[in-house]
Amino acid sequence: MTTTRQIVLASQPQAAPLASDFTMAEAELPPLADGELLVRVHVLSLDPYLLSRIRGRHMSGDAPDIGETVPSEGVGEVLESRADGFVPGDFVLGVVGWQEHAVLDGKVARKIDASIRPLSLHLGVCGMPGLTAYASAHHLAKATDGDRVLVSSAAGPVGGTVGQLARIMGADKVVGIAGGPEKCALVKSDYGFDDCVDYKADGWQDRVAAALPDGISYYHDNVGGELLETALANLSLYGRVVLCGLASQYSLDHRPAGPNPGIYIGKRAQLLGLVVYDFMHEIDDYAAKAAAWIADGKLSYVEDRADGLDAAPALFEKLGQGSNIGKTVVQLVPEERA
Amino acid sequence: MTTTRQIVLASQPQAAPLASDFTMAEAELPPLADGELLVRVHVLSLDPYLLSRIRGRHMSGDAPDIGETVPSEGVGEVLESRADGFVPGDFVLGVVGWQEHAVLDGKVARKIDASIRPLSLHLGVCGMPGLTAYASAHHLAKATDGDRVLVSSAAGPVGGTVGQLARIMGADKVVGIAGGPEKCALVKSDYGFDDCVDYKADGWQDRVAAALPDGISYYHDNVGGELLETALANLSLYGRVVLCGLASQYSLDHRPAGPNPGIYIGKRAQLLGLVVYDFMHEIDDYAAKAAAWIADGKLSYVEDRADGLDAAPALFEKLGQGSNIGKTVVQLVPEERA
Repeated sequence: MTTTRQIVLASQPQAAPLASDFTMAEAELPPLADGELLVRVHVLSLDPYLLSRIRGRHMSGDAPDIGETVPSEGVGEVLESRADGFVPGDFVLGVVGWQEHAVLDGKVARKIDASIRPLSLHLGVCGMPGLTAYASAHHLAKATDGDRVLVSSAAGPVGGTVGQLARIMGADKVVGIAGGPEKCALVKSDYGFDDCVDYKADGWQDRVAAALPDGISYYHDNVGGELLETALANLSLYGRVVLCGLASQYSLDHRPAGPNPGIYIGKRAQLLGLVVYDFMHEIDDYAAKAAAWIADGKLSYVEDRADGLDAAPALFEKLGQGSNIGKTVVQLVPEERA
Repeated sequence: MTTTRQIVLASQPQAAPLASDFTMAEAELPPLADGELLVRVHVLSLDPYLLSRIRGRHMSGDAPDIGETVPSEGVGEVLESRADGFVPGDFVLGVVGWQEHAVLDGKVARKIDASIRPLSLHLGVCGMPGLTAYASAHHLAKATDGDRVLVSSAAGPVGGTVGQLARIMGADKVVGIAGGPEKCALVKSDYGFDDCVDYKADGWQDRVAAALPDGISYYHDNVGGELLETALANLSLYGRVVLCGLASQYSLDHRPAGPNPGIYIGKRAQLLGLVVYDFMHEIDDYAAKAAAWIADGKLSYVEDRADGLDAAPALFEKLGQGSNIGKTVVQLVPEERA
């Protein structure tokens, strides 16, 4: 029997979650059944989609009940294996939840290349957020020479990577949208975007237009709402819009209406809905590519990291308020960093 | 000097136009300037986009003033030419307006293949509406084997042609949406659709779902609004939606909001805005193709035709009420038909 510390839901958040919606608990993990793995969790991922999932409004699954952990993904080291293809010492990625040890089903755990370090990369730029960006820029928008790119949530791991990948693929100009001067500064300094517009500042819509005076040929949308409307107003003819996230409505109780379809017709726009799960079969190839770009200095990442399981609720509250910067991770087992 | 009978705007329609918004007049046409043509109008096209144009709300140009003719396209025979490349006896297509004779600028008049008869075909299935359908099915949606197709405004010349072209390109099932049992009957009998749903009947949304139980892989939208929402709800994963018209809002004073973008993401939808002007360079090739399909019995068309200029206002009112069936034309010069 393995006992684990875990953080569980203490009350259902009514809007954006608060740290006080969670409480520390201790649980006995069940003995391993055939096909299962026991892992020690090294690093946890706190993702924006969990903000809607814990309110029962995300396609990835049901909301956790009171007393259950938040179903975060994380990277863990296999301590014990009753699943074919896994041995102690392997590193795997799976839905471990907010706890120090977890039992995973070997059928859905994914072995990772632990030579790509720090391990948190597998949760960010080399993992699902990075693959999301790659699916947008490479597979859907097919970013190419001369593109004029606008990216919302540009300080986040998806948006920040979209802009950098578009640049690698030949884009002429890459502009981000982010909330606040601190995030905007980072988008330019760390991710190397040409410009970044603070959507919390007055007149931001005019600044978007001014930053891309020849129009937007590719917009990556993580937000919806007014940002999408503004991007469409500035879209070039035949512009591509990848719809990837709806941060503007994750904390709403209703689904607001969207843009009038007339704008899509007038712009001859191409709108493409993106769900990263469709691309998971190529995650290993992508991770190797991204690691090489990082090593070559072509791809940068930023993490909002806290140490120790106890730090998770406050960091999650910060994510829900949009005041995180970069990929949000909780490091449970210390790790050397370059 | 040529004197022509013409029909002019007598009052600005406040919503859908009425026959009483127009009046008959007589005008002297100016003498031909260099580069101009005098034509005798044989057949006039009454198009839905004119319903928004006469209210100043269409990209094709400004609204006509009181006392001006409605800028309809039509086919005319050249009586006199001061434009290079045109001689008397040529047939041309251009914006002739609601009148029996017209002066056209040779730079924008387009010579047509007058062996394709009746001449009204150049305004319908072999003309811009047909090319619109071809751009949707062939260029944008790339209709192919196994497609399950839904088409709104299916009794109209664009929608009716979209479904038939999709079938020619290999679609498995083609379902239309039209207003009323008479139109629906025609969509099945004349255009050969597998089914047609009457959106004026209760429960039509359920009938759309039942008619395409495996989901819609390609939706051609001429309407927007509730029809678009219903199609999206029944769209297959990776379904294509060609946005081509917004009949639901042509008579509104505001631009209503559209679907929440979440539906596009969840369905991994591909939305494509279509403006037929982008494809006008291939109209002659398309007309020849369409004429061959008609000759082979693969492509049918339906016209709502009236004879004589005086019939235009009442026919236009009918178009605005949506009670037209097929391509609406006014025949000014009688023509033999097969």
